[in-house]
Order: sequence, then structure tokens, then C-alpha cells
Amino acid sequence: MAIYLDNAATTKPCNEAVSAAYEAMTVNFGNPSSLHRAGLDAQLAVDKARKVIAGSIGADSSCVYFTSGATESNNLALRGAAAAYGKRKKKIVISSVEHPSVNETLSALEKNGFTAVRVSPVSGAFRADDLINACDEETCLISLMMVNNETGHILPVSEVFAAVKKRFPDIITHCDCVQGYMKLPVRVNTLGADMISLSAHKIHGVKGVGALYIRKGVRVIPIVSGGGQEKGIRSGTESVPLIAAFGAAAEKYSADISERYDKVCDLRKQLLAELSEIPGITVNSPADGSPYIVNISVEGRRSEIMLHFLEQRDIYVSSGSACSKGARSGVLKEFGINDRAADSALRISMTHENTVEQLAQLGAALREGIKKLKG
Amino acid sequence: MAIYLDNAATTKPCNEAVSAAYEAMTVNFGNPSSLHRAGLDAQLAVDKARKVIAGSIGADSSCVYFTSGATESNNLALRGAAAAYGKRKKKIVISSVEHPSVNETLSALEKNGFTAVRVSPVSGAFRADDLINACDEETCLISLMMVNNETGHILPVSEVFAAVKKRFPDIITHCDCVQGYMKLPVRVNTLGADMISLSAHKIHGVKGVGALYIRKGVRVIPIVSGGGQEKGIRSGTESVPLIAAFGAAAEKYSADISERYDKVCDLRKQLLAELSEIPGITVNSPADGSPYIVNISVEGRRSEIMLHFLEQRDIYVSSGSACSKGARSGVLKEFGINDRAADSALRISMTHENTVEQLAQLGAALREGIKKLKG
Repeated sequence: MAIYLDNAATTKPCNEAVSAAYEAMTVNFGNPSSLHRAGLDAQLAVDKARKVIAGSIGADSSCVYFTSGATESNNLALRGAAAAYGKRKKKIVISSVEHPSVNETLSALEKNGFTAVRVSPVSGAFRADDLINACDEETCLISLMMVNNETGHILPVSEVFAAVKKRFPDIITHCDCVQGYMKLPVRVNTLGADMISLSAHKIHGVKGVGALYIRKGVRVIPIVSGGGQEKGIRSGTESVPLIAAFGAAAEKYSADISERYDKVCDLRKQLLAELSEIPGITVNSPADGSPYIVNISVEGRRSEIMLHFLEQRDIYVSSGSACSKGARSGVLKEFGINDRAADSALRISMTHENTVEQLAQLGAALREGIKKLKG
Repeated sequence: MAIYLDNAATTKPCNEAVSAAYEAMTVNFGNPSSLHRAGLDAQLAVDKARKVIAGSIGADSSCVYFTSGATESNNLALRGAAAAYGKRKKKIVISSVEHPSVNETLSALEKNGFTAVRVSPVSGAFRADDLINACDEETCLISLMMVNNETGHILPVSEVFAAVKKRFPDIITHCDCVQGYMKLPVRVNTLGADMISLSAHKIHGVKGVGALYIRKGVRVIPIVSGGGQEKGIRSGTESVPLIAAFGAAAEKYSADISERYDKVCDLRKQLLAELSEIPGITVNSPADGSPYIVNISVEGRRSEIMLHFLEQRDIYVSSGSACSKGARSGVLKEFGINDRAADSALRISMTHENTVEQLAQLGAALREGIKKLKG
């Protein structure tokens, strides 16, 4: 039985999600835009999921728009708000450790005349003031991730957004909540976010669907136009199976966020205890980060080599984020980790279904790997 | 047992597609970007589907890019080519009956300085020369649909693209093949298309995935950026379940396109014979159109009223296209059908699994409806 510890890359869909998708593929297969009952039934499945997901972040259903995933959500948020609000105000502020779907999208906007401000952490942590002070009257948008996908660092999003809105009420605030959703509490009002990106496949839904929350009154110019679905914000026939699966997963997991959090905290404690006894291992994740992600470096053993060694023992972890496909992403460096340590980094990302026994096996495999492998 | 005759809106996923999606949700759930075996297995499933779909249109695998659906494919084709080639050449030519994902996207581009040329049919048919002559040295792109989604009209795409390329080799050609794919032969070279949009859910795949073929050497600026998936053309974690399902459906149906075509021709013949005996019904679809779509008008009976009457008898048809959700789309008018007839239009869209008996039941229900309903 494989030990899957790469849940920040993707999770296994839960039975409820699979069943919901199956139902929408085999029985409820209509097009939500069709006027007959087959269409209506499909529309009802979409509405039901929308209600659940909106409720899970304390939002009104009318503010939740389905997309093909968080990458599209982030693109829609940045490109859409830039198009709507960036005529005169050309500055966009982000952290220096955002996901590529934010960082690269901002790079694309830079080519179209926008100015990017990428705020770095200091000594391994973000100072709220640095992010707040990066915003000014020229700024149209600030986008911050809730939890970093490589290290688990939690960014001071609420504090920053509240201060920014106080000084510059017109600045649009966007939060990429992908690694926080269903792990930490995500509430639109607490966050002070005008827009929030969510992904299904990180919460045991299915790959290929996500959502963007857009506060009422906030304007976003669509990046995909057509038949006018999702109130014109995101055209294209809705993926009813994936949306229904997303709703099923959100319904299942919104009930016990804090219980699962506590369980994963215990797992992390166990893991850190295990790792502390292995010479040559340093932990790159902060103590006050999300317990779901533990980033480590194994002295003198290159990430890919160790990753494949573990894989042979049916243990799946990641080197950096899945998105970077093994390339050094720069995020660890931003957090003050030197290149040598970054090149031997492994990301262990857990779910509530992992066990103490699995982590003990990981520990044993790491010890063995350190013995057998050279850098 | 419902009689589903709205297959141009969406089709029921075939068992092979459902099984493929199920497998990728329950067993092969890795992220294709992950470096370990779970990631590799997912990547292999994506590669397999890509190969099948590329083969089905006579293309090289490296030229097929997965998207979230044909609406996104059309957006990527138009917006992406406009960004790449539209710096100086600002004219884009389309037909006046394109799907909203082409027509509305062109409207969005018009707001950004592009000039739209929408060529109308004459006396219910497109003249190739009109489309060819609309292109000039200022034109960066021509986009034509293969088969109209409301009426089944087949556009002279190959002829137009060949002539355009001869005169202006630099003009990029794009064909929205959604209603033609797996119904008529779609070959990239025969069509002379630089880009081709495909949808899974119109060929018994699952809603939420499509593809864009991009000829080698043709540049497209991405509309969704991030982790660099799909060679950077379309970032975002691939929806392995939907892509695998798409591949399974394409594999199944590419084997017998002409047999199914012949079968549906017979069905249409039967349907037209049936309808010809019902007073007050006129056929809006051309005799030389796709047999899969039969658009009719029922004199003096509004589309929605008749649609719901048929629905009560478990017969599902469409008024106009699903995308327009009942609003008069303008396409019928372009084909010379007057407003009165357009307001009573019904679209009957078949698949090879429909039967002569079902069409007889449709005929009987239409007779009954005409008797019972007023306009």
C-alpha cells in the first residue's frame, strides 16, 4: 500500500466526490443551459454545489463563480481586475512567494504596461507593514496567498488587507486560498478579501474545477467569453460532474475543519520528533505554519535522488511544488534557505488520513536513504 | 424512458468515457506534474489521450493542447492569435453565425482595438468568395465553424482557408469543429486550419474538457498562465479524469464515423418524412447540412411552449442553441428565416443511438402539440 504524502500537489478524491461525479456522468448528464428538465436537473446540481461552497467560506451563493481550477481563478482575478481597474492605476502588489499562476500572470501583465511589486519576507517571515506600505494610490490590486504551497508559511493576509482597505478603499484585494481551504478557517469577511481562489482537487475533489469568489460590486472583465454562463464572468458549459464533486467534497470536509487540523497537528508533531532524530535533516517550514506541509532538507542528498529512493519504497513526496516539476522555484530562497539546502529539499504534505505508522515508515526510509545515497 | 434529442447541447457520456474518468478519480489520481510514479502514471494517461485525439484529426500529438472545453479553446485561439499576430494587423474575419465563444470573444477584442468583419450568408448559404474576399493584408486571423450548431449548415471551410492561405500565407486560420468532430471527417491538412477547437462533451465525453490543435510554428499567447503545463500554452493541473474520458470517447468513435453518419442520415430521412406529413412544420436546416441537426419551425407555436409540451412527454429538444438559453440568437435570421418562424424554432439534434421509433414518437407528440397549443 503506497504512502501518499504529496497532498499539496493533489489529493485522492473522496468517495462522496466520486459518487457525485459518477451520478452527473451517467444519469444527470444534461446541459445546465438547456431549458428542459434534463437541463434543469443539471442546473440544480450546480446550484447545490455553489450553495455549499459559498456557505463554506461565509459568502453568498451569488458571489461564487466556477472555473476550471485555481490557476484559472487566479488568472481571472488578476487579469480581470487589472482590465477593470487598471486603466490609470497600474501597480499590482503581490508577495514574492506566490504560486506561479499569480506570479507568472503578473509577469504577463507587466508586458502590458503594469508595474509589479513583489514583496519579500525578512528573515523567513513576512512583515505585514512591508506588504501594507507597498500599496499606494497607484495600486489597483494586491494579491496574497493564504498558505504557501511549498513551505506552509501562513501570510498575514487579514491584517494586511484590513490596513490596505483602510488607507486605500479602492484597492482590490485577492487571496489565493488553495492551500488553506478546508484546512484553516476561510471566511471572506475575516480575510477582508474582495476575491478568493479555491481549488477542488486539493480538498479531495476532482482535478479540473475551482472557484473564484467575487464580492458583490467588484468588477472583473472575463478572460473567457461566450455563451454567458456564470453570469457572463466565465462562459462555457459547466462541468456538472466536477462541480457536483467539488460540492460533495466541500460539504464533507467543512464539517470538521478543526478536528482534522488537530489531527494533522499531532501527525506533524510526530513527524518532527521522528525527523529530529535523523542527523542531517533540517526543517524549512516554520513552527507557526500550516501543519499540513512540512518542508525539509536532507543534507547532501539531492531532492530528486531522495524522492526516487522513497518512491521505490512506495512513499510519495515532492521536491518543491508539483507545479515547478523539479525546477528550483525560488520560494525557498525567498524564505532564507540557501541554494544547497534548497537543492536537497523535500515537501511532505499530509492529509488527515495519513497515519503515525506511515510517518514512521517515512522516517525509516529517510534514514536508509541517507545511508545509501550520496548527494 | 426519455427520448433525448438535444445532442448538440450535450451528449450522454459513453461507458468507456465514464470508466476512464472513474479510474483516474479512484486509482490513478496523481498530479501529472509530480515526479514520482503516481505523477508519471497520471502523465501517461494524459499522453495516451493526447495521442488518440491527435490521431483522430490527423495531427501530431505535440500539437494538441488540452483546455477546459471548446469555449476556452475558441477564446485561446482568438485572443491568443490576436495577441501574437495583431500588433499591426488588426482585422479578424468570422462568419456571422459563429458560436458565441467566437462571436463574443471577437466583440471583446473589438473593444481592444481590433476590427471585426462578420460575413453573412446569402439566401441561406455561405459563398466561399464572400469569406475569401473579406480577408486582406490587414487581416491577422480568420475563424470559421465547420458545422453550425443551430441549423447544421456546413461552411465551406477548406475552400476558404486554401484560397486565403494562397493569397495571404500569413493569415492564421482557425476552425471551430465542435459540431463536426466525430460526425464528419476532421483532418487538419484537408481543412487547412492552423488551429482547431474540439469539445469532449459533444462526442460522449464529459463536460469540462476540450482541446485546441495548434499547427507547429503558429504562435499563441496564453490566456491562462502559471505552472507551465501544456508546454506553457495552458497552465493549470490537468484534469486527468476528463482528459482520459475524452481520449476514451475519441478512441471509441473515431473507428466508425462513416457508419454512424450513414445511420444518422437514415434517421434524418425518416424524420423529414415524418415531419413532411405534419401541416405547419417547415424545415430550417439545409438538405446538404449535417444530418445530426434538424432545425424546424412549428407555425404559430412558440418554441418554449412546444419545448415544454414535448418535455412533458419525456422528449427533449432545444429551442435555438443551449448556449442562448432560449433567447433568439440571430443565427436563424442570418440564414434567412424570419422572426416569426425563428420564434417557433425547435432544434432536434440526434446521435447514432436514437431510433426510428423515437422519431415516430416525436412526430406524434408534435401533432398533438399543434392541436392542443396556441402560439
